Amino acid sequence: MKKIMNHPDQVVEEMMTGMVLANPQRLQRIKGTTVLSKKTIPNAKKVALISGGGSGHEPAHAGYIGKGMLDAAVIGEVFTAPTMDQIYAAIKATHSGHGVCLIVKNYAGDIMNFDMAAELAVTEGIDVEQVVVKDDVAIEDSIFTTGRRGIAGTIFIHKITGALAEQGATLQEVKRIGEKAANAVRSMGIALSSCSIPAAGEPTFTLSDSEMEVGIGIHGEPGIERMEVASAQEIARQLVEPILADLQLGKGAEVALMINGMGATPQMELYIVMKEVHSLLEKREVLIYQSFVGEYMTSLEMGGVSITIFALDEELKHLLNEESDAPYFRV
Amino acid sequence: MKKIMNHPDQVVEEMMTGMVLANPQRLQRIKGTTVLSKKTIPNAKKVALISGGGSGHEPAHAGYIGKGMLDAAVIGEVFTAPTMDQIYAAIKATHSGHGVCLIVKNYAGDIMNFDMAAELAVTEGIDVEQVVVKDDVAIEDSIFTTGRRGIAGTIFIHKITGALAEQGATLQEVKRIGEKAANAVRSMGIALSSCSIPAAGEPTFTLSDSEMEVGIGIHGEPGIERMEVASAQEIARQLVEPILADLQLGKGAEVALMINGMGATPQMELYIVMKEVHSLLEKREVLIYQSFVGEYMTSLEMGGVSITIFALDEELKHLLNEESDAPYFRV
Repeated sequence: MKKIMNHPDQVVEEMMTGMVLANPQRLQRIKGTTVLSKKTIPNAKKVALISGGGSGHEPAHAGYIGKGMLDAAVIGEVFTAPTMDQIYAAIKATHSGHGVCLIVKNYAGDIMNFDMAAELAVTEGIDVEQVVVKDDVAIEDSIFTTGRRGIAGTIFIHKITGALAEQGATLQEVKRIGEKAANAVRSMGIALSSCSIPAAGEPTFTLSDSEMEVGIGIHGEPGIERMEVASAQEIARQLVEPILADLQLGKGAEVALMINGMGATPQMELYIVMKEVHSLLEKREVLIYQSFVGEYMTSLEMGGVSITIFALDEELKHLLNEESDAPYFRV
Repeated sequence: MKKIMNHPDQVVEEMMTGMVLANPQRLQRIKGTTVLSKKTIPNAKKVALISGGGSGHEPAHAGYIGKGMLDAAVIGEVFTAPTMDQIYAAIKATHSGHGVCLIVKNYAGDIMNFDMAAELAVTEGIDVEQVVVKDDVAIEDSIFTTGRRGIAGTIFIHKITGALAEQGATLQEVKRIGEKAANAVRSMGIALSSCSIPAAGEPTFTLSDSEMEVGIGIHGEPGIERMEVASAQEIARQLVEPILADLQLGKGAEVALMINGMGATPQMELYIVMKEVHSLLEKREVLIYQSFVGEYMTSLEMGGVSITIFALDEELKHLLNEESDAPYFRV
């Protein structure tokens, strides 16, 4: 394992320091915590939006802090849910009396810790609601989850809820739109190569020189099938078909599309996948309203790609287009 | 070599198709060429700005097409200079009578082909000027260059010249600011792992499990030294010191800083480098005016990082801050 780091135990701490130093006008660290937030919290005009999870998925989630997206991101150790006390600290720091909405990827550790933090805050009179994202159609249950996993589609939920919160919507309205968006988004990915957790020092899994893992999780957890590396066209088909089978879009349906690199995938390959997905959607008369190609939800230096399809209606389209100044999400 | 592609000979063609499909409102392909451009060319109000080079460095350069940056990008085969006729086609398509400025990274093939295309256009009465970027302080001459190589600092030249051109400056003014910016920018990088050109099918170079290459070029060409992988702190020092020795900044000088991932480097590692570079600059009382952390000039799936330091004055700061809607550069 080769990494640019100082000490495996310090990577998250030093990353957070670097993030704040790179964005001094934009970001702050809540003192004594692993929470990064906007500088303008608590914001008395709006519902506070918090997400988070294990680190190693950057730019998720700190890269989505900004106007029209998140108020704060709670950062766990690499591929490890943030602890309850950190999530609680984020709630305390951001709430302004308009309530707090937590956006949580569906992993057992995250669910448990976000739940406990929310309950504690509620006992103190803070209104807290949660939106759980379960967009990965690859598998129903996994070693880390009951039900589907939450992956790259989560970024669209940040965007949609963030836009509505910015307009001064109530906590219940923000929760409603978050759940509506979460119900309309599906993802699936493949990996060509593994990644190493710094403290582990070894690859999380191994693939031979000719294999890929279909339905990979964002922590390197197994998917549904290991097979010979297929063509871009075939990979696109293997990912788009299960998504569309689940989403059941009619002809003329409009979607936002995300082609997400897992960490080590050249943009060149992502755009080749873009071409193939476009072709598959065109055949089914599904219209791409907007495309996002890049690294949005990574798994350290894993090679691979995930595809996210987000079914839009007029309300979601409008919110997707609203301004955001989060550094890693550009509409 | 594992790649998400259909056929090694089609990767550039298919990538370009994907880029246009992903950005139908923003990008077009000039018919019969490997040139991508804004949809609003020729623009009668401004100097046309063109850059380009071999592909495999995405988002360079097509990702920097947009208001306030490039009008067009000429795309070569992987790690191969675009041909003269393609560059000429870009000039013809974008010029509006206000002249055309070419921004060229200093590699022999690029220099020759951009030169020939410029000369041909000049014979037809089109005003063409060039700004050559030579920001890599690692080596003076290389197998591909006379003089220093042009690497990630080129993106700042796109931004500065783009901002001035947008204001309606003359070709000579755009050339002047481009040369001023090019003289103020320095870069250097290291690699932890290699990359494979799709048509070659094998890694461009090899490093052992414990080695890094210091002063790596963006095509995997050799740097100045191969050594054991150092700490992030030491890597930052090895890159920042040669840059600062060359740039000779006084105390209180203001700079823009780019921490650029070479393709496979997790953002986590880039932010750790950010922390270390900040510390080194702080000790020398150099002020970071603005930081850019991400993938700006890649080498396919190479692992590694380059650091760019761009010395600013009031004029450059102002232009750096001007609005741009290029998808992969956010101020």
